Amino acid sequence: MKLGTLKEGGRDGTLIVVNRDLNRAVRATGIAPTLQKALEDWPTIAPKLADLAEQLRDDKAVGSFELDTSALAAPLPRAYQWADGSAYVVHVELVRKARGVEMPASFWTDPLMYQGGSDSFIGPNDEIELEDEAWGIDFEGEIGVMVDDVPMGISAQAARRHIKLVTILNDVSLRNVIVTELAKGFGFFHGKPATAFAPVAVTADELGDAWDGAKLNLPLISTLNGKEFGHPNASTDLTFDFGQLIAHAARTRHLEAGTIIGSGTVANRDSSVGCSCIAERRVRETIESGKPVTPFMKFGDRVRIEMLDASGQSIFGAIDQKVVRYTPPA
Amino acid sequence: MKLGTLKEGGRDGTLIVVNRDLNRAVRATGIAPTLQKALEDWPTIAPKLADLAEQLRDDKAVGSFELDTSALAAPLPRAYQWADGSAYVVHVELVRKARGVEMPASFWTDPLMYQGGSDSFIGPNDEIELEDEAWGIDFEGEIGVMVDDVPMGISAQAARRHIKLVTILNDVSLRNVIVTELAKGFGFFHGKPATAFAPVAVTADELGDAWDGAKLNLPLISTLNGKEFGHPNASTDLTFDFGQLIAHAARTRHLEAGTIIGSGTVANRDSSVGCSCIAERRVRETIESGKPVTPFMKFGDRVRIEMLDASGQSIFGAIDQKVVRYTPPA
Repeated sequence: MKLGTLKEGGRDGTLIVVNRDLNRAVRATGIAPTLQKALEDWPTIAPKLADLAEQLRDDKAVGSFELDTSALAAPLPRAYQWADGSAYVVHVELVRKARGVEMPASFWTDPLMYQGGSDSFIGPNDEIELEDEAWGIDFEGEIGVMVDDVPMGISAQAARRHIKLVTILNDVSLRNVIVTELAKGFGFFHGKPATAFAPVAVTADELGDAWDGAKLNLPLISTLNGKEFGHPNASTDLTFDFGQLIAHAARTRHLEAGTIIGSGTVANRDSSVGCSCIAERRVRETIESGKPVTPFMKFGDRVRIEMLDASGQSIFGAIDQKVVRYTPPA
Repeated sequence: MKLGTLKEGGRDGTLIVVNRDLNRAVRATGIAPTLQKALEDWPTIAPKLADLAEQLRDDKAVGSFELDTSALAAPLPRAYQWADGSAYVVHVELVRKARGVEMPASFWTDPLMYQGGSDSFIGPNDEIELEDEAWGIDFEGEIGVMVDDVPMGISAQAARRHIKLVTILNDVSLRNVIVTELAKGFGFFHGKPATAFAPVAVTADELGDAWDGAKLNLPLISTLNGKEFGHPNASTDLTFDFGQLIAHAARTRHLEAGTIIGSGTVANRDSSVGCSCIAERRVRETIESGKPVTPFMKFGDRVRIEMLDASGQSIFGAIDQKVVRYTPPA
């Protein structure tokens, strides 16, 4: 089934079940008011949502309505935890190469992960509001999973069982801010403004053979101002699968239901498939020609991130966002 | 008024109003089910809670009961954001000095801040469960504030208005884990397990003259295994006040109501007042005698963190925690 959230009914929105074609939906009224609540009591709630999804498919769901996915909130408009890995180590290696620094060998065995802000995610078509173009505005196309309660110290194999939903996201990044920020040694903070999510998160059955329980074998398509920017496959060159990433996140802490774990920017070694962020293209340009050519995003620029199934149907709906100038309060 | 949370009624617990002496309380039934809900609608909710606090003080609150603060949850058992500063730069300077590295001058003007895990805080007397003593288990006594909705790009002066509650906390840290983690360049993650909070969070009026709107002029008392470890004053040598820390956190993002901002380990230049974490004492020992003497915490060790008002009354109640061995799932 596919689950989304209407921008109505408060800060967490209202949970809806969405059909496979992403054009009809029904409120999960009486089952779970929000996606967070559903994840907290998944064994009880999920079968009821699945029944409703079946009714929707068979055109028997009472109160179903025509859906415009562009009006949706992030499936979890806010979450208690957002931990983002950097699981495509080939991407990290490239970035280091461009900077002329060697990557520690441990990066191939010990995942990089940062704690992201999770209090105010933005919806798939919400504008990316930022104060300054000079911050080096970039998108990052990623895969994300939502888990139920995960005990501290879990193994990578056992962690797979806790994956309840899969989605895609745009981990908006401020490249010029990150450079100075990382030099401070405390990780990212200003460099990672609000993250955007696709219209829906889906259960494994919606992914069929493309999902092996811990990774997604399909291309993630990014488009910048109407031109395709890249379509790297999300399982190719993936160094750490979601079982490993969840286990890593849970090494010294329990993860509460509703935690979102991200893959980091989807990237393949093969340069012909393009990139899921501008920074990587600039790195490839630097390696090839000595300097970056593609500029970061300007106000008015649009990014679209989407994943299609084998039949060409959008799985999660599209993230499609414009960057706009934000004016801070006086 | 003083607000706390009972471990009943679900993951967010049940909001209670607590009397000044911390020995009687009343459920905020009919006003706000949880502290998170109260912070989301503070202008409407706070006056009603204040009325209830007055009734409790006058022994007229229906359903009031005798309170054992040690049984409470963290005031916010989970939050949507926990951003922890390092506002006592004198502490950072000492750590650097012990390592023989110079501190960038910018650290005096540009706050350090990291994004912490906020999905599962622990209560004031909950055990600190960890798998391995070799991780270098340490406490960090800090001041924290809870805010309502803060717009991105706010000024430090305007940010003060958004402080709704003040509390103290134990930002449990794994020193030996942090060393290798920081070397990876992505900041803290494994090195920061679940954070513990005092029994109650309080409004400014409970702090009287000790609160100037952005900092707390009282000593924070830490006790390790029954021996006082330090009592540095929380306003002495504070480089960035809470107005500045909130503005820093909101530089590139909105902060949603219920966000918690931390001060970082309370530290004074004057070594005679002691420390709020073991790491700092070890640094001072290293500077004085060439090597650290005080060991990090072992299983069975206890830490107590508390703040008293001028009359000796505990303001927030005590954090009093034992470190115990955690066995991960098979």
